[in-house]
Amino acid sequence: MSEFKILEIKKSVYEDNNKRADMLREELKEKKIFLLNLMSSPGSGKTTTLMRTIEHLKDEMKIGIMEADIDSDVDAQTIATSGVKVIQLHTGGMCHLDSDMTRQGLVGLEVDDVDFAVLENVGNLVCPAEFDTGAVKNAMILSVPEGDDKPLKYPLMFSICDVLLVNKIDAAEYFNFDLAKCEERVKKLNPNIKVIPISAKTGEGVEVWADWIRGQVKAWKQN
Amino acid sequence: MSEFKILEIKKSVYEDNNKRADMLREELKEKKIFLLNLMSSPGSGKTTTLMRTIEHLKDEMKIGIMEADIDSDVDAQTIATSGVKVIQLHTGGMCHLDSDMTRQGLVGLEVDDVDFAVLENVGNLVCPAEFDTGAVKNAMILSVPEGDDKPLKYPLMFSICDVLLVNKIDAAEYFNFDLAKCEERVKKLNPNIKVIPISAKTGEGVEVWADWIRGQVKAWKQN
Repeated sequence: MSEFKILEIKKSVYEDNNKRADMLREELKEKKIFLLNLMSSPGSGKTTTLMRTIEHLKDEMKIGIMEADIDSDVDAQTIATSGVKVIQLHTGGMCHLDSDMTRQGLVGLEVDDVDFAVLENVGNLVCPAEFDTGAVKNAMILSVPEGDDKPLKYPLMFSICDVLLVNKIDAAEYFNFDLAKCEERVKKLNPNIKVIPISAKTGEGVEVWADWIRGQVKAWKQN
Repeated sequence: MSEFKILEIKKSVYEDNNKRADMLREELKEKKIFLLNLMSSPGSGKTTTLMRTIEHLKDEMKIGIMEADIDSDVDAQTIATSGVKVIQLHTGGMCHLDSDMTRQGLVGLEVDDVDFAVLENVGNLVCPAEFDTGAVKNAMILSVPEGDDKPLKYPLMFSICDVLLVNKIDAAEYFNFDLAKCEERVKKLNPNIKVIPISAKTGEGVEVWADWIRGQVKAWKQN
């Protein structure tokens, strides 16, 4: 049977989150752990995308996943079936994680032997964008049914991410999703962001995404 | 040309939101204005659903819409084409509205002659659930591509709503969405909630939803 811990995260008592996030990144650097902060709306396909990502990468690197949610452990249950390390983080109603909460998760996950760690943040396009988790890079998923106008409405989230996965791209026609227009809106906010269209369902584009991760993990371990 | 105001909402200075929300409801009662607080994830189809709702009801009652967003005015632009009263509320980064912010919006909308007012809350399944806006009823939209497991992950939101619209129901098969399972999960949290499957795209179910509103508006004016 797949097993995983459920950790009730405590609210941070620290005021200096940015400084503490930098400290966490330095520690991750020393330990050669690449931590990705993955954000999106509820239901954009974070967990399914992670399952696909794990398929592509689990024979090449040691992976650890932190599943943050207000409640329930459905996502950790799903990830546990893939055989990688996983922990469910309960935020107790809190709508985001900061660096101290992320640190609690990393300790709970026992992350020291992990090459690639992922924090699946609470599903929310607003609050998580405001808190540095200490992750090395920020990724977000926008799913096609949400619409190509979302960069106009949640600009901060699109501005702070290093990579944007446009998921459920197989449904683009059905939902009249204009990828070019979406990308134009995103690049206006954040010219350096990498945009990768994928379908976690069909597997389209997932190899491009896996390659991006390979490059990031390698660079983080080397420098 | 369609015209509407954009209002930069000020952060509330009041600590007693619940009391102030009750006060607002009493005022709405006196003025016979039925205010609905409409919540959902980003991209679930709040604005498209409102456009369909307006089509069904605008000849029977005077409608006023408040579109709350972190940024942009795309939703108010869309609603304005329907000919009903609309105002865009900018929350300045805030992830929810409380009753004082809602009151600012109602004043900006000049709502006194309105029978049915809607607050389209910020797209977010977490924070808006925690703040009473002063609305008479709470409605939420869950869209099919988000998945039937969302009641497990965002229980508070599903608990505080009087009605749940399951939107994009025309795509249920494509996304393996189990409506019965979803409804069972929702009813476990909130036995009295009314669940209405709709497709704002095809129009399916919208008449049932319009009927629910008719009943609510009538009851609110009478008692």
